[in-house]
Amino acid sequence: MASLKEIGLAAAINLLSAFAFLVAFAFLRLQPINDRVYFPKWYRKGVRASPTHSGTFVNKFVNLDLRTYIRFLNWMPQALKMPESELIDHAGLDSVVQIRIYLLGIKIFVPLAVLSFLVLVPVNWTGKTLKHSEHLTFDDVDKLSISNVASGSNRLYAHIAMSYVFTFWTCYVLHEEYKIISDMRLRFLESENRRPDQFTVLVRNIPPDLDESVTEHVQHFFCVNHPDHYLTHQIVYNANKLAALVAQKKTLQNWLTYYKNKYERTAKKPNTKTGFWGLWGTQVDAIEHYTAMIEKLTQEENSERERIMNDPNCITPAAFVSFKTRWGAAVCAQTQQSSNPTIWLTEWAPEPRDVYWENLSVPYVHLTIRKFLMAVAMFFLTFFFMIPIAFVQSLANIEQIKKVFPFLEPLIEIDFVKSIIQGFLPGIALKIFLIVLPYILMAMSQIEGFRSLSSLERRSAHKYYMFILVNVFLGSIIAGTAFQQLDVFLNRSPAEIPKTIGVSIPMKATFFITYIMVDGWAGIAAEILRLVPLVIFHLRNFFLVKTAQDRDEAMDPGYFRLALCEPRVQFYFLLGLVYAVIAPILIPFIIVFFVFSYLVFRHQVINVYVQLYESGAAFWPDVHRRLIVNLIISQLLLMGLLSTKIAERANSVLIPLPVLTFWFHKYCKGRFESAFVMFPLEDAMVKDTLERAREPTLNIKAYLRDAYVHPVFKGGDTEMQPLNEDEQDDPLVATRRNISSKASPEPSYLSGH
Amino acid sequence: MASLKEIGLAAAINLLSAFAFLVAFAFLRLQPINDRVYFPKWYRKGVRASPTHSGTFVNKFVNLDLRTYIRFLNWMPQALKMPESELIDHAGLDSVVQIRIYLLGIKIFVPLAVLSFLVLVPVNWTGKTLKHSEHLTFDDVDKLSISNVASGSNRLYAHIAMSYVFTFWTCYVLHEEYKIISDMRLRFLESENRRPDQFTVLVRNIPPDLDESVTEHVQHFFCVNHPDHYLTHQIVYNANKLAALVAQKKTLQNWLTYYKNKYERTAKKPNTKTGFWGLWGTQVDAIEHYTAMIEKLTQEENSERERIMNDPNCITPAAFVSFKTRWGAAVCAQTQQSSNPTIWLTEWAPEPRDVYWENLSVPYVHLTIRKFLMAVAMFFLTFFFMIPIAFVQSLANIEQIKKVFPFLEPLIEIDFVKSIIQGFLPGIALKIFLIVLPYILMAMSQIEGFRSLSSLERRSAHKYYMFILVNVFLGSIIAGTAFQQLDVFLNRSPAEIPKTIGVSIPMKATFFITYIMVDGWAGIAAEILRLVPLVIFHLRNFFLVKTAQDRDEAMDPGYFRLALCEPRVQFYFLLGLVYAVIAPILIPFIIVFFVFSYLVFRHQVINVYVQLYESGAAFWPDVHRRLIVNLIISQLLLMGLLSTKIAERANSVLIPLPVLTFWFHKYCKGRFESAFVMFPLEDAMVKDTLERAREPTLNIKAYLRDAYVHPVFKGGDTEMQPLNEDEQDDPLVATRRNISSKASPEPSYLSGH
Repeated sequence: MASLKEIGLAAAINLLSAFAFLVAFAFLRLQPINDRVYFPKWYRKGVRASPTHSGTFVNKFVNLDLRTYIRFLNWMPQALKMPESELIDHAGLDSVVQIRIYLLGIKIFVPLAVLSFLVLVPVNWTGKTLKHSEHLTFDDVDKLSISNVASGSNRLYAHIAMSYVFTFWTCYVLHEEYKIISDMRLRFLESENRRPDQFTVLVRNIPPDLDESVTEHVQHFFCVNHPDHYLTHQIVYNANKLAALVAQKKTLQNWLTYYKNKYERTAKKPNTKTGFWGLWGTQVDAIEHYTAMIEKLTQEENSERERIMNDPNCITPAAFVSFKTRWGAAVCAQTQQSSNPTIWLTEWAPEPRDVYWENLSVPYVHLTIRKFLMAVAMFFLTFFFMIPIAFVQSLANIEQIKKVFPFLEPLIEIDFVKSIIQGFLPGIALKIFLIVLPYILMAMSQIEGFRSLSSLERRSAHKYYMFILVNVFLGSIIAGTAFQQLDVFLNRSPAEIPKTIGVSIPMKATFFITYIMVDGWAGIAAEILRLVPLVIFHLRNFFLVKTAQDRDEAMDPGYFRLALCEPRVQFYFLLGLVYAVIAPILIPFIIVFFVFSYLVFRHQVINVYVQLYESGAAFWPDVHRRLIVNLIISQLLLMGLLSTKIAERANSVLIPLPVLTFWFHKYCKGRFESAFVMFPLEDAMVKDTLERAREPTLNIKAYLRDAYVHPVFKGGDTEMQPLNEDEQDDPLVATRRNISSKASPEPSYLSGH
Repeated sequence: MASLKEIGLAAAINLLSAFAFLVAFAFLRLQPINDRVYFPKWYRKGVRASPTHSGTFVNKFVNLDLRTYIRFLNWMPQALKMPESELIDHAGLDSVVQIRIYLLGIKIFVPLAVLSFLVLVPVNWTGKTLKHSEHLTFDDVDKLSISNVASGSNRLYAHIAMSYVFTFWTCYVLHEEYKIISDMRLRFLESENRRPDQFTVLVRNIPPDLDESVTEHVQHFFCVNHPDHYLTHQIVYNANKLAALVAQKKTLQNWLTYYKNKYERTAKKPNTKTGFWGLWGTQVDAIEHYTAMIEKLTQEENSERERIMNDPNCITPAAFVSFKTRWGAAVCAQTQQSSNPTIWLTEWAPEPRDVYWENLSVPYVHLTIRKFLMAVAMFFLTFFFMIPIAFVQSLANIEQIKKVFPFLEPLIEIDFVKSIIQGFLPGIALKIFLIVLPYILMAMSQIEGFRSLSSLERRSAHKYYMFILVNVFLGSIIAGTAFQQLDVFLNRSPAEIPKTIGVSIPMKATFFITYIMVDGWAGIAAEILRLVPLVIFHLRNFFLVKTAQDRDEAMDPGYFRLALCEPRVQFYFLLGLVYAVIAPILIPFIIVFFVFSYLVFRHQVINVYVQLYESGAAFWPDVHRRLIVNLIISQLLLMGLLSTKIAERANSVLIPLPVLTFWFHKYCKGRFESAFVMFPLEDAMVKDTLERAREPTLNIKAYLRDAYVHPVFKGGDTEMQPLNEDEQDDPLVATRRNISSKASPEPSYLSGH
């Protein structure tokens, strides 16, 4: 372990570099030209006007008001200013609960730090074990950790007692937080405006019927089995090909805009080549070429649209079924429809922008097989991912390159290039893998067949957490690849494993402190600087933007990437809980991380991120469960460590801890989780009754009409297959519909997708 | 291991003793005096008339028709004669599925036996390993087992291949069986007559309300939240004290009858003493004494009845809420009512005779705490039960007895008594514990708060299975107490544990063969003889019976004790699956057990058992799950055994087996389990529609009126609190009620309780 001075120095360097990031951020965000990079959310909301339209020409791009630079850190108090209730309105419940994870970290670790510095640090410091063993050089940091307490010393009872106190405190905070968040969720759902998903249920695995089309079959089934509540339905088209065409057309249109802009600026007809990316092929006039291609694509798109409408094979056996009341939808979503549990599967419809359309039609048997295959794949990915990477690394050395690309030999022989390759190549495969990993995990979740973006994110977060736990946490403690660890686990006794890991934990404190500073602190500072969106925005702005609307589209506000951030935060929770008793010196670093993250993400949520969907904090049970897992891991490791230092009987005092923690988890699950899964009938009835009283003339059918149309059909000129209008269409209803269709415009987010 | 001859001898002895049991059974069942012991089900059904009322006096008691003795085994074909569909009508689905467990055993093990005797036995027999090691004496049985195959021999691939074949076959049979049984269940539910539980939901944890009584609160809540479907409800009284009084009165009445009979026979006024069990106290006239006491109790009972009716504290926060349609009940049972998941809990009402009234009012928090405490208790019971027994054993030796009861010394000093005590006492504590164990487990399940007898039985079966697995199976293989095993498990690696167990498995084959014969064969033979009910019936018949009705009550038909039988059967399944590859010689013994059990239990179900409740085979998912656990255990143990005999790489061919088996379980669970948990809306709607068409004038409210009244109130003279009759009571409805209450008499099973 390093000395306190060394750690202090490293901390200072990291703090300084984080500070430099902040200064850069403060400088960049004050430039009007970057306004859309650092405040995109306000633009999307239409609250903020572009500052480039006022003032002198220079003022449009550079901020010359020096006074603003002095208060360059004032984004921090600003980020804290907005009260939580307002923030929910502004950014949605998901975002608020996401940043509350960081707040939770502060709530847990500040009292833990105070207690451990008041109690454990003095106990450790006066332990004096390390002085005796003079052939080893130990530093101050070690004296603060449990290593400085002699084996068998009664001082260890202080650690046992504190581990009880810490567990109790963590569970208390977790319980309160779960309560608060489930209350928030219920209040949020209660206060929500009318949304299509409140009335709609996603029905999958509609069994094929020889005599009826899917839409007739759905209608008959629900007319029979939910006679008083069924309203209408929307069948799901397999529009994956059409979606690809639409995306392709958009790219071509970007190129067209680019060449048009170029033509305007240079007044010279731009040329392009017909081949891939305009790199080869015959030279043609670019504008004409792209106009022709877009026209061709439009035709293709239209014929594809028509084909989808008319080909029964394009209708997937899934449908969005809407009900007259929220009560009816709640009933249908929570009950089993058919005696065969693999057909007529119902679940809450995700909100329209949350739907992952590609997976709506996966049949039941495929789902179980896919889940099984992905579980096996995840196992191999976690434990054997080093094998292909090592293979790539073995290929990517200089001798290999010379062999495969002999013409590069003169270049490689230059000393400078050679040293770069030698220093760079071995790491690059791993680096690329780690960057790509979240996307691999997301793809695996997609294959598993989840039907909403929110559940995809939750699932990927779970996978990423497992990966970090095995490869970063255990991988750092037990040196060696995960595969070697697996071997260790299989060949040691269950009682020995925590011992093996626990014993090496105090030795790794310095390593993890450095990790927290380099990965945690710097990562957060980079997050607020938004370098990649900054560059991309300016590139787009320069090449593609013509109108204000283009500029709006060039903004990439991003969103809080739950699947990426939450598992990382969990890792810091794990570190904090593990080291709270063993080496309290680590806790302040964790606290700095949580405070800093909380500030940064609160700022980002207020000013930058535009959420893709609103799940109403449906991810919280997962967060809670992983925190409990972290807590239990920390308890087992402490038991493992203490088993080498203290009599077995004394150590067994710790056995109730994981048992009680597990029971606490079960209790919380039973007490709170259903608020995140179910929609209680009482609440549905209250909302229905209120709505009937307030808007007795509401035509809910018209309101739901296009809510669950595939996005590629949105705003299209082709008319959708008419909904089933077989109910009595008396004049009164018709009048109502006319009224309401004027009164209730399409919800704003539908156009946002 | 024993030689084939020895095993054959033991088998012959056991077969002979089983045969003796059967002869005794055949003899006893043909005596008219025992008719009610061996055919009680037919009496309960009212199909069979008492044979004692016809013929000569001797013929009433003894069967003198010698021809009937010749065909003493003809109960066997008779037991098989009744077709399954008729058996369902006769004995209920539960019984049919229970005996199908034994049929399943036959289906699995007969092909396994054929295959292993065709393939594995020749492979093992010609292995010749054991001949080489001449300093050990091995017998024929060992030559048939895997021990006879040399380590590293290619012959072991035959065992690996067969383990795949066996797993595939077992899974195939399990899948088919699950399908058949879930179909049977669905058809059974479909064809079922109207039953109160189809319309009724059990609501628990009704929150207290300051302004309303429980009954008003329930009514208001469901009128608001299920306005179109709510019909009526029945609140639950805490009548535990009253039930105790009723039971006490019944005992007294038995004594009164006994003394009255005695008086009639002897014409001498019988006396009794007022103290405990009539053992001491002042002497009084018995008939007068008991008449007075019964009168006093009747008064107490009436005042208690009145108290329950009027004291709001006797109303528990639970209610049986009935709906107008099965659809409404299905919806309410499957949905969450309130945003607080710990109040207004709804679940399907068990059928009236299945209700376990004592547990209806346990609040949510208590439930989680009770479950937790019982889990801890179960852990200690399983692993440490030997400690108190060893303590009792240490007390129960002769020296201790002499010390505590010095006056017994002369008696004990007699050699004969001494030897009995010495031989008998050490075992008796364990024996008593094992007999009492199922009751302990049932009591633990009751504390856990299950609300129906069927779920109590299922839960107890789970506990008993765990106990058998740890203490009988592992305890026999690894000698030593379960506590020592726990120590072994904690201190060996996960890879080593199956190895430790696997290696000793072939050596235990003889032991388990003996176990199957002594416990399995003899147990079943004793089951059909019904010695205890036989004795009790004749005692009762002699002392208490006066009228034909009394004689009916003296019958104790018993029932299939799932909590006791199913875990034991699972143990035989486990043995069969484990030894199928390792020592096929064991399989024929298992098959004999299954065939014999199937015959016996089919006979018992047809002629003897009267089921307490009908759960519609709700226990099958548990049976399936435990069979899967058995299968996976057998695979792991085979891997452990082979790891000592074969290269690691070859052995790893077996790794996919448990993984695939587990996935198969997941698949079956998703595919079939919901048929045992949920009641699909489609089926509910079909039944509702049919009923409306068939009986448009049915008054379902009158039908449900008294269905869920606590049994102690049934047939009582006190009027129940009137149901809420606040709906429009127009003449039409009144007429309907009159019609239907004549048309539909109270279901017969209500009086059977």
